[in-house]
Amino acid sequence: MKVSKDHPRYRSLLVREMMSQMVRDGIVAPSGLIAHGRGEAFDYLLGEQTTDNARRAERAAVVLLLSASRPVISVNGNTAALCAEEIVRLAEAVGARTEVNLFHRTEERLDRVVAFMEKAGGKQVLGRHADASLPGISSDRAKCSKEGIFSADVVLVPLEDGDRTEALVRAGKKVIVVDLNPLSRSARASSIAIIDEVTRAIPNMTAIVPGLKTDGRGQASDPTFDNAANLAEALEFICARLNRLASEGKA
Amino acid sequence: MKVSKDHPRYRSLLVREMMSQMVRDGIVAPSGLIAHGRGEAFDYLLGEQTTDNARRAERAAVVLLLSASRPVISVNGNTAALCAEEIVRLAEAVGARTEVNLFHRTEERLDRVVAFMEKAGGKQVLGRHADASLPGISSDRAKCSKEGIFSADVVLVPLEDGDRTEALVRAGKKVIVVDLNPLSRSARASSIAIIDEVTRAIPNMTAIVPGLKTDGRGQASDPTFDNAANLAEALEFICARLNRLASEGKA
Repeated sequence: MKVSKDHPRYRSLLVREMMSQMVRDGIVAPSGLIAHGRGEAFDYLLGEQTTDNARRAERAAVVLLLSASRPVISVNGNTAALCAEEIVRLAEAVGARTEVNLFHRTEERLDRVVAFMEKAGGKQVLGRHADASLPGISSDRAKCSKEGIFSADVVLVPLEDGDRTEALVRAGKKVIVVDLNPLSRSARASSIAIIDEVTRAIPNMTAIVPGLKTDGRGQASDPTFDNAANLAEALEFICARLNRLASEGKA
Repeated sequence: MKVSKDHPRYRSLLVREMMSQMVRDGIVAPSGLIAHGRGEAFDYLLGEQTTDNARRAERAAVVLLLSASRPVISVNGNTAALCAEEIVRLAEAVGARTEVNLFHRTEERLDRVVAFMEKAGGKQVLGRHADASLPGISSDRAKCSKEGIFSADVVLVPLEDGDRTEALVRAGKKVIVVDLNPLSRSARASSIAIIDEVTRAIPNMTAIVPGLKTDGRGQASDPTFDNAANLAEALEFICARLNRLASEGKA
């Protein structure tokens, strides 16, 4: 479909078309489109902006990634489709490995997403050889790479399912999620939840690395960051915005 | 994917699998899945329930449909996939025609959705022959049937795009939408916006027909219904619920 430039939701419509094409290309799972739609709705409630709250979480996340011994960025189909190059840049900036890990896992789609990340500049992208298993979740979704997620101490999982976030936390890892729903299980179970849209969050994080990377590894994690308080604040931001829209609607 | 029954979002996951299958079957457009996801997010905010506010809108909508000379229910891919039989029952109950009308129109998908509605029991389903055009919107989305939407006085368009809702209103029709986002252009442009999930809203409407159908046609529309006030109230309901969740989250 041709998208008219004067449509009030022009950018959303372009991204929708791109994501639909990514399903045809075998990068995004059909149900990944449903997840994208959920994200769109929550981003609409946020006003499609990075809040101060999100900036604080992004900063805490970069500090944590820089302090990690074995940081890994987990990439699923939606993340690859939305911001493959941005993930590659962040991984380079913080010295993290990237691992493709799919919710709806098929070997074919896994191969395609790894190739897609490599085409975006990704080096030594993990995920093709799932030689380890996370305990406590169903078989297919437990699969991961031994030298990647399995042995990571800090994992950034943009757009992750609640079950897997909880399993990663139970496995003793610090888990950073990017999730637009401050009420989601992923957001609540994670160590740091960034309530921001992934294509804004990832470049924001890369941009603050130079200022935080003083002596490379070894910086302590941000002691002032409180995930529960941050989530409550994100929810309050949405509430305040809705209350304002509701009162404008009545005017 | 096999969905585990103990997953906290079991029903949502089943519907997601069904909708994804409907894309493979050519009933739902890929971007229809994104729209479904947006709806899921708003329904989650509503608490996945029919509010008193929605019940009032559903009642007003049935009164309007029963008072119409030429009521039509417009069906798109998502509506067909989610509740084809429920639409057929409502159409029979209120004496409305049904017309398949797609946002992402292809002749092939149109044929499939009409056949799908017929299989669900739909009689004389319109839409295969688009022999009229709504003024003021781009060509493909303007197409409709002369004896259906084009000459209707009341149109129920579940899950409709803002552009087309506005075009229908400009064409002098009373327009009823089912939309989970009380801020959407469709909801604001419509005569009656039902802020409810379509698989709850449609059977709710059918259930109240017998009580309202006193002497058949000719009943006046509900003079007490104010769409703007109803939308403001729906938004306040969501705000109040979020405020409550936000304060529980902090506790």
